[in-house]
Amino acid sequence: MKDKNYFLRKAQENYPELKFTVLTPDISEFIASSGNSVILDLGQHAVGHFSFSFDNVERFMDAPVRLIIRFGEDMREINDDISQYNGTVSKTWLQEEILHLDYPQKTDMPRRYACRYIKITVDKTNFPIRFFDFRFVAQTSADTSALMPSDTKDTLLKKIDCVATNTLKECMQTFFEDGPKRDRRLWIGDLRLEALTNYYTFKNYEIVRRCLYLFAAGECNSLGFLSSFVFETPYYKSGETHIADYALLYVVSVCDYYEHTADISVVNDLLQICKSQLDSFEAILDENLIVTMQDGWFTFIDWCPGLEKLTALQGVYLYTLERFSEMLKKIGDEDFNKYSLLLSQVRSACKKHLYDKNSNAFINDLDNKQFSIHSQVWMILGGVICGEEAKNLLLLCLDNKNAKQPVTPYMHHYATEAMMKLGMKDTAVSYLKKFWGGMVELGADTFWEAYVPDDHDFSPYNDRKVNSLCHAWSCTPSYFIRKYGL
Amino acid sequence: MKDKNYFLRKAQENYPELKFTVLTPDISEFIASSGNSVILDLGQHAVGHFSFSFDNVERFMDAPVRLIIRFGEDMREINDDISQYNGTVSKTWLQEEILHLDYPQKTDMPRRYACRYIKITVDKTNFPIRFFDFRFVAQTSADTSALMPSDTKDTLLKKIDCVATNTLKECMQTFFEDGPKRDRRLWIGDLRLEALTNYYTFKNYEIVRRCLYLFAAGECNSLGFLSSFVFETPYYKSGETHIADYALLYVVSVCDYYEHTADISVVNDLLQICKSQLDSFEAILDENLIVTMQDGWFTFIDWCPGLEKLTALQGVYLYTLERFSEMLKKIGDEDFNKYSLLLSQVRSACKKHLYDKNSNAFINDLDNKQFSIHSQVWMILGGVICGEEAKNLLLLCLDNKNAKQPVTPYMHHYATEAMMKLGMKDTAVSYLKKFWGGMVELGADTFWEAYVPDDHDFSPYNDRKVNSLCHAWSCTPSYFIRKYGL
Repeated sequence: MKDKNYFLRKAQENYPELKFTVLTPDISEFIASSGNSVILDLGQHAVGHFSFSFDNVERFMDAPVRLIIRFGEDMREINDDISQYNGTVSKTWLQEEILHLDYPQKTDMPRRYACRYIKITVDKTNFPIRFFDFRFVAQTSADTSALMPSDTKDTLLKKIDCVATNTLKECMQTFFEDGPKRDRRLWIGDLRLEALTNYYTFKNYEIVRRCLYLFAAGECNSLGFLSSFVFETPYYKSGETHIADYALLYVVSVCDYYEHTADISVVNDLLQICKSQLDSFEAILDENLIVTMQDGWFTFIDWCPGLEKLTALQGVYLYTLERFSEMLKKIGDEDFNKYSLLLSQVRSACKKHLYDKNSNAFINDLDNKQFSIHSQVWMILGGVICGEEAKNLLLLCLDNKNAKQPVTPYMHHYATEAMMKLGMKDTAVSYLKKFWGGMVELGADTFWEAYVPDDHDFSPYNDRKVNSLCHAWSCTPSYFIRKYGL
Repeated sequence: MKDKNYFLRKAQENYPELKFTVLTPDISEFIASSGNSVILDLGQHAVGHFSFSFDNVERFMDAPVRLIIRFGEDMREINDDISQYNGTVSKTWLQEEILHLDYPQKTDMPRRYACRYIKITVDKTNFPIRFFDFRFVAQTSADTSALMPSDTKDTLLKKIDCVATNTLKECMQTFFEDGPKRDRRLWIGDLRLEALTNYYTFKNYEIVRRCLYLFAAGECNSLGFLSSFVFETPYYKSGETHIADYALLYVVSVCDYYEHTADISVVNDLLQICKSQLDSFEAILDENLIVTMQDGWFTFIDWCPGLEKLTALQGVYLYTLERFSEMLKKIGDEDFNKYSLLLSQVRSACKKHLYDKNSNAFINDLDNKQFSIHSQVWMILGGVICGEEAKNLLLLCLDNKNAKQPVTPYMHHYATEAMMKLGMKDTAVSYLKKFWGGMVELGADTFWEAYVPDDHDFSPYNDRKVNSLCHAWSCTPSYFIRKYGL
């Protein structure tokens, strides 16, 4: 029987092997008295464990030393004043430890950190001490030796591809993490984009299977939607959040997996769950076949403040229906007709009820004609409009500074995908270079959770210090560059 | 050849076995949100390692938790505001850690602590967490099963004896530590009193041998005096401090050891070093046979502020000469005559040059007739005066509120010893009950490094918070109670 235990066993069978690399920073030793500090540079973003040794210099330390050790994904995090914190997520994500050490020793710090820079401050020592043997044991389940370089001849795209694959590598641990600094968790939205990029880069199918099974083992909410995230440490628990667009994108993730592996056994294991997600969504459509908003954290789409999300969510539904119908056709499933019929009915309904003829754009409702890139992109990805009509609409909204803009690489991905779908390759490349290239210009070693070109302090959590600077959902440039030969 | 390597090898051969006991506090679990705290009571002072487990309650913790864990030898240390610290020794001795823990786990804290109370404060958690499985693995090299109760019928003395043996037990680790909270170091002055009490209680001769050899392996200063302390972790190093009275008390410690074991092999190993300490002292006597003060931290005697120490130091010299001569006589060493002749010559010199006939007391010099208990006690222990004359002098100075008073149990020990030497048993018992009994009345589980009945905030280091509340040199009531059948 395909129950929770079955899925957890399958998840465990697909536990990916971690690969470890010892990194040594640019500085090999330093001598410090109270108040001195040093900043080590690993030369690259890394996820793993730090160790160091220290010893007496001339006089023996005759009291414990107090060290403050901070890990930063970039130099801003190293220099931030963290006594000031106004974020909406826990301050405990900030990577700083206070250590008391009784005598000279090799110190293996027990926690895992995500960083490029490490600042060691000697808060208090009675006599100078010498630090040496700095080691950072970096870990990932990505096999970097299997990674082919991209074929692109464009210098900036080549750089973007490197940063993107590096981002994915760092997030590939015992599952696809959203960010190795924060939240270190498996979310469906991130999983889908990580898996997609992984098919064109590291090709680790095991980790994809593991993640798909981990979600299958979770509990659905009363609407029937899968948990949007799961915890695996110290024991398995599916999260209390059930975002509708993520539940749909789980289905897309299964379709992607089948497309890249033709592995029917996994599809057979998960098919009923996929159908159930679509059926649950169908159950909350109104008489016009438009989704009705539900209580709680019902939909995500993007972190854009004030965004109206109904139309975009409806687009995710169509996008999923299309991908799922295609897969059912390929595998000869008898429900193909049912879902493909629904797809065309809902598409028509969207054009009728969500398209505002006056503004020539998709809106959320007639009382509040919010114009967002999100709505247009998802209606295009959902196939409600296509061809020149869609191109014009997309160009119009990209040009419109009053349109609600994506703030996450996650939403920028889907905007880029819409361009590629419409054959707007040049526009997509410019868009990609402008957005992800902007981070590269700012010195990014990995792509960020959120990036707003005009506001370098933007944070979905009200404090930039807690933003993740290596975030899985930003890794998709490598997917575009490699799939479309950009 | 009896060189440093030989002595270190002998020290290693006498490494005492540590015995471990698992203590569980009065509280077995508690559930906490941000800002909550709990104080665990182990029911006794303990030295060792703390571990605990914690878990989610209903919702999974979705961010690391930040805990503040404080260890206190008494409740004052638990409640102290340690942001305010004005001590002259390192603040890092204050036992408080800040921990970030990523997910529910059993947490073994790596450092050793000395405490009775443990306060866990949940500084930050997003959801309530449950703590349980609190364990403190206490350690000592004292074999408590071998300890006979004292014969005293006096309730207070019985209590004092228990606290004293407990103090010694806590300081008996891989060597005789001065204090297991601070400095955790082997000092000669503490060693001598610990070993002395040990002969009447735990009878662990191995640890005494180890400590004697550890000092023998050290480097002497230009005057020829042994290091007053040694470090043994992470590797051996003798300290830069060479206190003359401690160098002399090393010789007394060897004499004590021989007296209680008749182990001639150890005496033969250390005899040359002992002679060298006395000869080095002889070399800094002036033409009147009175010691000349030397630069640096030359003598200790007590932490009493403003104390003039020359006369007391001279008394330590006589005390040592007497004990050493006795031992040489017993073992038939040819230098017996030399040292016993010197003893009588120096005694006469002291009576002549250090005794002030006007004040009928020992002073340090004629320009500054400081009247201290320290000078009188050490002249008595040095045998410069004896009988009724000495008794009257001692009673006079004990009664004199203007006399400089001992502040450490270490000096109070020698005052008590002087009383016992003069047959003033009742006075000694009252003195002992008043001083050590005062700490018992204040709830001491172990005796303290410093205790001034009129000033409970007295600290040799300008901040009471850093005082050691379990300090080896205060363990000698058990020696008096048991040796003299009090």
